[in-house]
Amino acid sequence: MKPALNQWTTKRWTVAEAVDGCVRHGLEAIGLWRQEVAAQGLAESVRLVRDAGLRVSSLCRGGFLTSGSKEALDDNLRAIDEAAELGAACLVMVVGGLPGIPAGQAPSEGFSRDLAGARAQVAEALSVLAPYAGERGVRLALEPLHPMYCADRAVLSTLGQALDLASPYPSSQVGVVVDTFHVWWDPSVYEQIARAGERIASYQVCDFLQPLPSDVLLGRGMMGDGVIDFAPLTKAVLEAGYTGDIEVEIFNADVWAAEPDTVMATMKERFAALVA
Amino acid sequence: MKPALNQWTTKRWTVAEAVDGCVRHGLEAIGLWRQEVAAQGLAESVRLVRDAGLRVSSLCRGGFLTSGSKEALDDNLRAIDEAAELGAACLVMVVGGLPGIPAGQAPSEGFSRDLAGARAQVAEALSVLAPYAGERGVRLALEPLHPMYCADRAVLSTLGQALDLASPYPSSQVGVVVDTFHVWWDPSVYEQIARAGERIASYQVCDFLQPLPSDVLLGRGMMGDGVIDFAPLTKAVLEAGYTGDIEVEIFNADVWAAEPDTVMATMKERFAALVA
Repeated sequence: MKPALNQWTTKRWTVAEAVDGCVRHGLEAIGLWRQEVAAQGLAESVRLVRDAGLRVSSLCRGGFLTSGSKEALDDNLRAIDEAAELGAACLVMVVGGLPGIPAGQAPSEGFSRDLAGARAQVAEALSVLAPYAGERGVRLALEPLHPMYCADRAVLSTLGQALDLASPYPSSQVGVVVDTFHVWWDPSVYEQIARAGERIASYQVCDFLQPLPSDVLLGRGMMGDGVIDFAPLTKAVLEAGYTGDIEVEIFNADVWAAEPDTVMATMKERFAALVA
Repeated sequence: MKPALNQWTTKRWTVAEAVDGCVRHGLEAIGLWRQEVAAQGLAESVRLVRDAGLRVSSLCRGGFLTSGSKEALDDNLRAIDEAAELGAACLVMVVGGLPGIPAGQAPSEGFSRDLAGARAQVAEALSVLAPYAGERGVRLALEPLHPMYCADRAVLSTLGQALDLASPYPSSQVGVVVDTFHVWWDPSVYEQIARAGERIASYQVCDFLQPLPSDVLLGRGMMGDGVIDFAPLTKAVLEAGYTGDIEVEIFNADVWAAEPDTVMATMKERFAALVA
């Protein structure tokens, strides 16, 4: 089993460079990010991955829906169109934090503390986005984020909550992401992975660093550099019926500073030893 | 309703000073810390709180049981004895992280990634500690900690998990702590508070700061300085039947640097406006 490269792991690379890197390192799938696809051009990105014979394991990311704004909804419709063009296996949805709290920053004046309200907004937005995605053959992948990001990035905090949110829709329209960093601590994670079954739209791996760095967003480490025992999680995801690609997605200052080809080599080695 | 002072909020104060502070500010209860009680002397601490007519709302803390060591178990037996001497309403239990990861530090060589095993160790230790506590009239209060502390401080991560762990024992022997900082994000928190009912041994409040400071342990803020909506949590805890003291427990570099009497005044004001 080979890993898929989530493009953010080799953040310095453009889409063209990352596609080339995957080919040189013998990988078969890549997870792309919207801003990089936009920088490369959507049509050109489509051409690059097709010519390289790569699968697009995910497009990152839609979401940030808690404000209830028309702008955010429209942007998600565009993201769905892009995922369709790219033939991405799913559009990863990071649903957003409390309204008025920009990701990684202090709350703005007049921000909201209404967590239940923010969660309800996500459910409401999904009722618009899921049918639209269905019509275009795109699968939304709801990503529960670690609870330390609840205020500013995702009020969706557990796999169980993601499955509840997905449940009104066919699993071809709305699935969930299992990301080891976000779920490893959850006492009910094995139960919820089994419950998820075919709802698992993406399995992403990276380690959880201890102690966390000063910017907690960058607490994602290369497999083996943190505290997660990957083998039982991978086993559970595969036993639940997941047959898709396994993306390595690392946000880490040291990884980003390193030579991307070195990162690719380490990633393949650690993936083989610890994840697969 | 008046807050109780958790001693760590005014960390500069000795037990004698904190007791005096509570009396001057008209508070009726104090949560003490073992190392401060030891510094003051146990008998002297008992005398101070009794003479001042204060309730001891909690003793912090027992726990760190995941290594399975005899030493840790013995230390917890001593903590139970101390809680009995002080007439504390409960002994707060922070159960410990993965074996070989010191709190707030990088993993030691040969640390364990066996999360399920660590959780099983806690259950096993509890089977020794709970009856001992029961004999001495002490109530253990299992504290689920925010999942970002799972690796190094507490493999007990949700209120639901704490209630499962407590369930074999009478609620007079083993209860749970509801601490707003640790549980505010939990999609099932209201359901679990209702389920907890008389198991709630302690209700602690402080805010969750956004963004988190570089040492995430110190992300606890004065009520109103963070993102938590306290009113519905307090309402749920009271509706579940909790009639004990409500402790304000803040770990925060700025709060610790401030004049303790100023902290006390702010705490009373914010508590009245936001929590009670």
